[in-house]
Amino acid sequence: MNEEDKNIVNTIKLLAVDMIDAAQSGHPGIVLGAAPIVYTLFKNHLNFNVNDPNWFNRDRFIMSPGHGSALLYATLFMAGYDIKLEDLVRFRQIDSKTPGHPEKNITPGVEYSTGVLGEGFAAAVGMAIAEKYLEGYISKYVDKQRIIDHKIYCLVSDGDLQEGLAYEAANIAGLYGLNNLIVLYDSNGITLDNPLSKSSCENFIKRFDSLGWNIDYVSDSNNITKIDQAIARAKRNKSKPTIIEFKTIIGQDSFNQGTNIVHGRPLSKDDIYSLHQIYGLNTSKFEVTKKYYENFQKIINKRVSGVISKWEDYANTFHLINSPEIQIFDKFVKENSISLVFDAKNFKIQASYDEDLRETNSKIMNIIADRTPFFIGGSADLSASCNTRLIKYSDFSKDNFSGRNILYGVREHVMGAITNGISTYNIKAFSSTFLTFSDFMKPSIRLAAMQNLSPVYIFTHDSVNIGEDGPSHQPIEQLMTLRNVPNLYVYRPADINEVIGCWDVIMKKDKPSSLVISRTKVHILAGTNGEEVSKGGYIVKKENKKIDAILVSTGSDLTTTLLIADDLKQQYDLRVVSMPCQELFFEQSEEYQNEVLPMDSKIIAIEASTKENWAKITSYNNIIGLDNYGYSGKSNDVLKKMNFDKDSIKNKVLDILK
Amino acid sequence: MNEEDKNIVNTIKLLAVDMIDAAQSGHPGIVLGAAPIVYTLFKNHLNFNVNDPNWFNRDRFIMSPGHGSALLYATLFMAGYDIKLEDLVRFRQIDSKTPGHPEKNITPGVEYSTGVLGEGFAAAVGMAIAEKYLEGYISKYVDKQRIIDHKIYCLVSDGDLQEGLAYEAANIAGLYGLNNLIVLYDSNGITLDNPLSKSSCENFIKRFDSLGWNIDYVSDSNNITKIDQAIARAKRNKSKPTIIEFKTIIGQDSFNQGTNIVHGRPLSKDDIYSLHQIYGLNTSKFEVTKKYYENFQKIINKRVSGVISKWEDYANTFHLINSPEIQIFDKFVKENSISLVFDAKNFKIQASYDEDLRETNSKIMNIIADRTPFFIGGSADLSASCNTRLIKYSDFSKDNFSGRNILYGVREHVMGAITNGISTYNIKAFSSTFLTFSDFMKPSIRLAAMQNLSPVYIFTHDSVNIGEDGPSHQPIEQLMTLRNVPNLYVYRPADINEVIGCWDVIMKKDKPSSLVISRTKVHILAGTNGEEVSKGGYIVKKENKKIDAILVSTGSDLTTTLLIADDLKQQYDLRVVSMPCQELFFEQSEEYQNEVLPMDSKIIAIEASTKENWAKITSYNNIIGLDNYGYSGKSNDVLKKMNFDKDSIKNKVLDILK
Repeated sequence: MNEEDKNIVNTIKLLAVDMIDAAQSGHPGIVLGAAPIVYTLFKNHLNFNVNDPNWFNRDRFIMSPGHGSALLYATLFMAGYDIKLEDLVRFRQIDSKTPGHPEKNITPGVEYSTGVLGEGFAAAVGMAIAEKYLEGYISKYVDKQRIIDHKIYCLVSDGDLQEGLAYEAANIAGLYGLNNLIVLYDSNGITLDNPLSKSSCENFIKRFDSLGWNIDYVSDSNNITKIDQAIARAKRNKSKPTIIEFKTIIGQDSFNQGTNIVHGRPLSKDDIYSLHQIYGLNTSKFEVTKKYYENFQKIINKRVSGVISKWEDYANTFHLINSPEIQIFDKFVKENSISLVFDAKNFKIQASYDEDLRETNSKIMNIIADRTPFFIGGSADLSASCNTRLIKYSDFSKDNFSGRNILYGVREHVMGAITNGISTYNIKAFSSTFLTFSDFMKPSIRLAAMQNLSPVYIFTHDSVNIGEDGPSHQPIEQLMTLRNVPNLYVYRPADINEVIGCWDVIMKKDKPSSLVISRTKVHILAGTNGEEVSKGGYIVKKENKKIDAILVSTGSDLTTTLLIADDLKQQYDLRVVSMPCQELFFEQSEEYQNEVLPMDSKIIAIEASTKENWAKITSYNNIIGLDNYGYSGKSNDVLKKMNFDKDSIKNKVLDILK
Repeated sequence: MNEEDKNIVNTIKLLAVDMIDAAQSGHPGIVLGAAPIVYTLFKNHLNFNVNDPNWFNRDRFIMSPGHGSALLYATLFMAGYDIKLEDLVRFRQIDSKTPGHPEKNITPGVEYSTGVLGEGFAAAVGMAIAEKYLEGYISKYVDKQRIIDHKIYCLVSDGDLQEGLAYEAANIAGLYGLNNLIVLYDSNGITLDNPLSKSSCENFIKRFDSLGWNIDYVSDSNNITKIDQAIARAKRNKSKPTIIEFKTIIGQDSFNQGTNIVHGRPLSKDDIYSLHQIYGLNTSKFEVTKKYYENFQKIINKRVSGVISKWEDYANTFHLINSPEIQIFDKFVKENSISLVFDAKNFKIQASYDEDLRETNSKIMNIIADRTPFFIGGSADLSASCNTRLIKYSDFSKDNFSGRNILYGVREHVMGAITNGISTYNIKAFSSTFLTFSDFMKPSIRLAAMQNLSPVYIFTHDSVNIGEDGPSHQPIEQLMTLRNVPNLYVYRPADINEVIGCWDVIMKKDKPSSLVISRTKVHILAGTNGEEVSKGGYIVKKENKKIDAILVSTGSDLTTTLLIADDLKQQYDLRVVSMPCQELFFEQSEEYQNEVLPMDSKIIAIEASTKENWAKITSYNNIIGLDNYGYSGKSNDVLKKMNFDKDSIKNKVLDILK
């Protein structure tokens, strides 16, 4: 390492150590171990624009072990991002720009919220897919295009790679030959609890080799030249994702280097003092030598300014190419717009319409696919059952990056994370599986909602009425799990009108959505209205004079609810409300909410899910739902045994009305 | 294949095909592909006792691709289990012994409920750990013990192995050198949607080799001799788990053999007719040639009867060995009793007690560990943070199967599944991680609850009050997710008294439990009582005269709640109820429930979780909880920003009381 490299790296290290010391909270181990890797990446390879952190063609860097946040922030600060020294001082404090784990939308330069191990890596694979897809799309129309041709860099830790999610992600990356993905593996052989060897026996090289990766190795991670060369080699690979194993020493140079003690505890004052001595930087706490700060940025600027201006020149003339596909892409680049014309009210449906709701959903999805190229997705080996294939379009594959159907295999979790990663490119990405299996994806769904990404998770087979497959396949509590995720919009349409309405809102709204689709056949219901979906809930059947009670329902249960209302019409004056999306409903004005569900009326909710789902609108005793597992049997037999067939529900409604 | 083998295998195949045909629902592909493997296992290797399906030392067989249920049931029937032909006829019908996917507790011979891919395999690894642990324990006291020395066989499909969970499981099995685990891989190269090659590129041999497995291969899976020899070789391996890749043809001999068309759809009548022709069995629907039925059982009986009687002789004299450890084990074998004396009322705690609740929990767990050897578990690399190590005991490892601390690495999901697998041996197995990461384990937690197993999932860091780590680590919706799992008992103790009480119930109750522990320091609270925990909820502070309102809370929020009640005592006559376990509370008599929470009183629930959690006891507006993600910052700053500090909560209570 030359003097200047050494001094800048050590400045970054000491800054991060000071941050952790000031917060008395954080993870010094990774800082001292991995700083040279991150430094070399930023110095010599990563293309980014500190003046425009969202520059379209920037390289992405994701720090999957988010507990290394201090290292990341110190590096971003030194690299010239809009992060001040005061921001570093306020590390892990409320309302700071430097939260405990990296959070997208808070810190410039942070591409994904990490800290949940494995998730960052898996999302990076999604980003690599998005980059390849966009490259594949535009390359069909422009020779030697330069509008999108960047890399995804991802730092991973031993812990990241232990997660099954990371295995799934590695498999997908290998399968698709994502050579735009370069993974920097901080291999320190220590996890929080123990040396890695106590919880892993695997041969790392064989593992990634078995998955079709290019593997590289750097034995001395203080050797900037070697780090640099390895990254350069990776960039040249034409057909495979690369993982470079960097042998590092956790907490290097600190008293407890090489042990798990230094992983997640602030260093002692003595230890920090000793680091200063070792590094020979004559600085006090949070002091940065101006020269190093400036020189690092100078080096970076020298390297990236040409890249950026060249890209800008190209981007500025790009739209002149006379082609509708280019215009759409240009708009996408400049306005983040996916250029979709899709309005619920434009669809005219015949009243006699009667089909499996998955079939309906498939039609709508395929219409959307025809109208915008920025709608892609796939299934965890259930596209035939979920009916979510984009029929006219090919499979995304190693040899066909412009394919729009992504085959995930039976890997629900990484499907969620990849869908998120693709969404960071403002592509509308969808995934699909059965509703019970949404459980596998929960950690990723939460992260999308936390970051306000806008993927669409489609879940079919949404009720015990699927019958024969039995309790393992019958969702009970999953709707509540999803609705309980803050900032996630859960849609459960009742018929084709509402399916159209849901998609209309989903495509317009920059929010994470979950679309829950019944497997049952439903005909078009009197009173449903696609446009009303945007209000979350609306009246499908008005009372005659005065309301005896309001029945609220969703999805296939609305069909049953309407039949019950009809059966009881001689006895009770009932209103029926469809509420395909609770989150939207509670965003409406109080006036509207009160118009649909007047304060003083008796409200009865009916849905094949746990009762807590409807606590927001009525009392527990007025909710007709399910509270135990289902059974294997014919749909009607299952519903009857669970007291959720039409007659049983009707009797419960009568009990409540009495 | 000799004639008899062929005829029995084909009888099994046709029975299964007939079952699927009768149900017009099911999966013929795996039946026709994997029947010879399952047949050979049952015929020549699996030690089981049809007259006592729960025989302690039986080999376990888990069919991880549970959609192969028809094959399993047909084989169990032919092998002589208490399953009648009528049961097969009623395949996938309500209340039958033959549900759509195998369900433990419904069908004799079914060891684990499968159908959720990857889960069966992962649970099998847990069973292998349990077997090794018990073997390791007893071997310390008896030379050449024969009370427990069996194998775990597990059939897996391509889909199973795609799941990240399966990768985690394979890693753990390799790490621990579980040579009692023999995995039979039905390698047909087809998944539901596509040929496997479209969603996987991995080199299977390299993959398992990288994880330390013994790998074997059978190219012709109609060759019973080859199958037999491969299984025999696997049984002889001394140090590694074995996976045998059997090359099979999905739906072999049917019209669409070798394609995904035959995976999950009943065969046509013509196809079934043609199969009969090909197999040359002159049978009609559900007809079984008596000879084959009897001969199969004769062969099995001849092989296993000696094994069983030898074991019984040994087991009958086993208790005569004069050693307390043997007595305990004998009781465990014969009564499924873990012989624990642990009573909440026996603990005397000083009133001045004040410590981090994790510390308290650790002490109790270690007391339990000292009192029974059938209490083992581990952490997903957070034993230091969760404080769940059994301090006096060693690590479970390849060289030390009697170790009681299982190191899972950062693999939460398989930790859940393995904990379940161990629980099938009636060992009280625990796992631990942070509450937010419970999301990773949800699919396995659900399966434990569905099967009524009794693992203990411990989750610490249970509130936004953990502070600095920020939203990715701060649980909001997780408590609701857990409480919404039918048949799962969720405990959130408020102080040491309740921690003791929770463990008392958990150890006595054969139910899946989740123990949610605060990271905060709490002193012993006036009014808490370990014995009352068994009632789920109880009064910790009585009103003076008449109740103005009842405040209900749990965990660390109870401390705040009691302070608020005290602050308001001049203005309002408040009762405070602690409800560490909702599930237990709602099992109490209505009288008791009404005594604690009188019908006509105003109830206010206070908990750092989503509001739906308390819908069962009060209306949504009377619940003080959280509905959005937290922040990184000091605990108090986070609580203040979220309006969940003491003063904010007090103001909300006052608002409700007005």
